[in-house]
Amino acid sequence: MTAVTIECCPPIARRPLDETEAAELAVLLKAVADPVRLRLLSMIGSNAGGETCVCDLTVAFDLTAPTISHHLKILRTAGLIDGERRGTWVYYRLIPETVTRLGTLFTPLAETASQ
Amino acid sequence: MTAVTIECCPPIARRPLDETEAAELAVLLKAVADPVRLRLLSMIGSNAGGETCVCDLTVAFDLTAPTISHHLKILRTAGLIDGERRGTWVYYRLIPETVTRLGTLFTPLAETASQ
Repeated sequence: MTAVTIECCPPIARRPLDETEAAELAVLLKAVADPVRLRLLSMIGSNAGGETCVCDLTVAFDLTAPTISHHLKILRTAGLIDGERRGTWVYYRLIPETVTRLGTLFTPLAETASQ
Repeated sequence: MTAVTIECCPPIARRPLDETEAAELAVLLKAVADPVRLRLLSMIGSNAGGETCVCDLTVAFDLTAPTISHHLKILRTAGLIDGERRGTWVYYRLIPETVTRLGTLFTPLAETASQ
C-alpha cells in the first residue's frame, strides 16, 4: 500500500507537482485546513473502537448539530472519512488511504526512500 | 529531530487535538492548501541545489511577479520556506522542520511508532 501511495503522490520535495496534481491536492488540503475539521478528524481517528458516533462528536463542540454535519460532509466528500447509519445515528471512521496520501506528500524524501 | 516533531504534533489518529493545536495547524494547512503554493513548494523543495531563485519560479507560472511574491510571502510567513537576497534576486529554500510537521500529522500511528 505504501508503494501505491508514493506513486500516486510524490513527496513535495521529490519533483515539481504539475497543475492537475496541485489542484487535486489543494482540494484535499482545504478540507483539512480548518480547526473544527482537524479536531473532528483527530477524534474519529483516535477513537479506540475505530469509529465514532456523530452523537459523541456533536457534544464535544460548542456548535450546533447542523454545523458539525456541514464539516463532516466536507471531510466525507474529500474522502477522508466514511459514515454508516445504524439506527438513529451515523458512525464515522477515517479512510486511512486518504490520510496517508497527505502524510506522504509532506514526508521528507530520505524517509520515504527508506520505507 | 523526528522525536521532537512527533512530540510537537501528534499524528491525527493518535489523540484528539485540542483547540489551540487545531487552530495553529489549520493556519499552516491553509498556507499549503492552494495549487500555486503547492507547486511553488514542490519546485523549491525538489531543486537539486537546495534553493531556487525567485527568477526561476516566476517564469514557470503564467502569473505576474507580484502574484508569485504574494504566494511566496504566505509560505514564508507560515515558516515553510526561507529566503535570502543575493544581488538582484531572492533565493528560497524549504524549511524541512515545518514540512515534516505536516507529514507527521498525517502519518499513520503504526508507521510513527516504528520510527
